[in-house]
Amino acid sequence: MEALVRIEQALDMAVSHAEAAGAPPQLAEAIRYSVFPGGARIRPRLCLAVASACGDDEPDLSSAAAASLELIHCASLVHDDLPCFDDAETRRGRPSVHRAFGEPLAVLAGDGLIVLAFETLARAGACAPSRLASLVLTLGRAVGMPAGIVAGQGWESEPRVSVSDYHRAKTGALFTAATVSGAVAAGADPGPWRALGERLGEAYQVADDLRDAVAAEEELGKPVGCDARLGRPSTVRELGVHGTVERLSGLVAGAVAAVPDCQGSDQLKALVMSEAKRLVPKKLADRAAA
Amino acid sequence: MEALVRIEQALDMAVSHAEAAGAPPQLAEAIRYSVFPGGARIRPRLCLAVASACGDDEPDLSSAAAASLELIHCASLVHDDLPCFDDAETRRGRPSVHRAFGEPLAVLAGDGLIVLAFETLARAGACAPSRLASLVLTLGRAVGMPAGIVAGQGWESEPRVSVSDYHRAKTGALFTAATVSGAVAAGADPGPWRALGERLGEAYQVADDLRDAVAAEEELGKPVGCDARLGRPSTVRELGVHGTVERLSGLVAGAVAAVPDCQGSDQLKALVMSEAKRLVPKKLADRAAA
Repeated sequence: MEALVRIEQALDMAVSHAEAAGAPPQLAEAIRYSVFPGGARIRPRLCLAVASACGDDEPDLSSAAAASLELIHCASLVHDDLPCFDDAETRRGRPSVHRAFGEPLAVLAGDGLIVLAFETLARAGACAPSRLASLVLTLGRAVGMPAGIVAGQGWESEPRVSVSDYHRAKTGALFTAATVSGAVAAGADPGPWRALGERLGEAYQVADDLRDAVAAEEELGKPVGCDARLGRPSTVRELGVHGTVERLSGLVAGAVAAVPDCQGSDQLKALVMSEAKRLVPKKLADRAAA
Repeated sequence: MEALVRIEQALDMAVSHAEAAGAPPQLAEAIRYSVFPGGARIRPRLCLAVASACGDDEPDLSSAAAASLELIHCASLVHDDLPCFDDAETRRGRPSVHRAFGEPLAVLAGDGLIVLAFETLARAGACAPSRLASLVLTLGRAVGMPAGIVAGQGWESEPRVSVSDYHRAKTGALFTAATVSGAVAAGADPGPWRALGERLGEAYQVADDLRDAVAAEEELGKPVGCDARLGRPSTVRELGVHGTVERLSGLVAGAVAAVPDCQGSDQLKALVMSEAKRLVPKKLADRAAA
């Protein structure tokens, strides 16, 4: 089955559990709204690509791992958009969750999605119990303290933070979890897969800073210029636009080089390259092509 | 080892993981502030009491299960106190987390505690993998959608809800998880333990409504009269004070009757009775004694 179809099905199945009989209707609706329609689903695609490269002998488990990463990503977007953080009015081209459903349901949708991610792992993990602890710990490390998404967001309340520490926690951790989980779900040693996730995560965050600085709002579907407005650590503030583009190229090359030798390595390298193209803002691509 | 000592140690170990090198300092502090000093630790004590009654053959696992329940309980207090819900200024006799650390860190502390609860299970569960999936699912059910704490809080955004559905999700679910997890962590069949948790949870919520309606603020360490002010479902609003006291007695008797026959059943029954005494507000106890 094509990866994106597997991901959407696994997400739909997870969200359906949250909508089961007895659920408060508006919160159930807010949770579905937070997950569908999605963005590029890049983290779960990366997870499944690594699982495939490792043999993917438990496809229900790798699908669940992929879905759990995306559920966490969606939770982080919902909470990041809250008035006390970015106060974003839009996300993916339509009202953010707190604008559409109110702040209480946005807080709860984020909480519910975090819980759902762990439940999704446990539901699939019952058939491969020896892999479950590692998957839960991998996800927990990527989301929580001391160095996951929540920690990354926490650094925004500190007077001083290095850009790379901030990015590693806020974005890199979930990319690293994507490659590591893909390997673990397929019963492989995750060690050789960590560097790929780390480099892709860094590339993705650098590209995000670049988009925030130079892309048009309609292209992104969310407000731009947030980093500067909020005084947030940003590679563009540190290196300038030109320096940031150079840094991005270096990181993508590093990611390609980090793909371990395996049966599916050529496919994975091609995926990394095609993703990298998507990361560059149209404005910059046009400028480079001119 | 005495149960309360085990619980505090397991909580301290869990929170220490969140404070490891690289953690953002203020968020780490907010997380510790959310957990220590604690309240009555009634959910983890219930969990350990059931585990003991079932033989407690993996004490590290039952301690972790107990700690995970309390971490979730603390997370729910932090988020419930937020300005968009109860807007509580105080909790356990001192400033609520968002008053002490600001709203962003309160949202993140709650998120971090939810994640930490699942990580705590997984860290201990690696040594008993066959019990881990069940523990994660039990905790997930108690916290998330469609019928856990998050769902219970979600019902506050709905125009209509039955008091008992609301209470079952908002409070009962975590009590049920306490007895079920205690049994699962000890390798026992959790089925016979469910009713005890359900009845205690209901008793606890009814007692909470009663305290909110009649106790003095200094006795509770948090604002009183919230339910009426927020138009929240409450047994006192439904049955009046006298009817609520009668209901509470019936529920406690039902809980005692629900303790399954086992080696530790007498101890458990005694625990239930002594807890029940704590639940009744001093004002009402004095009135009854007069």
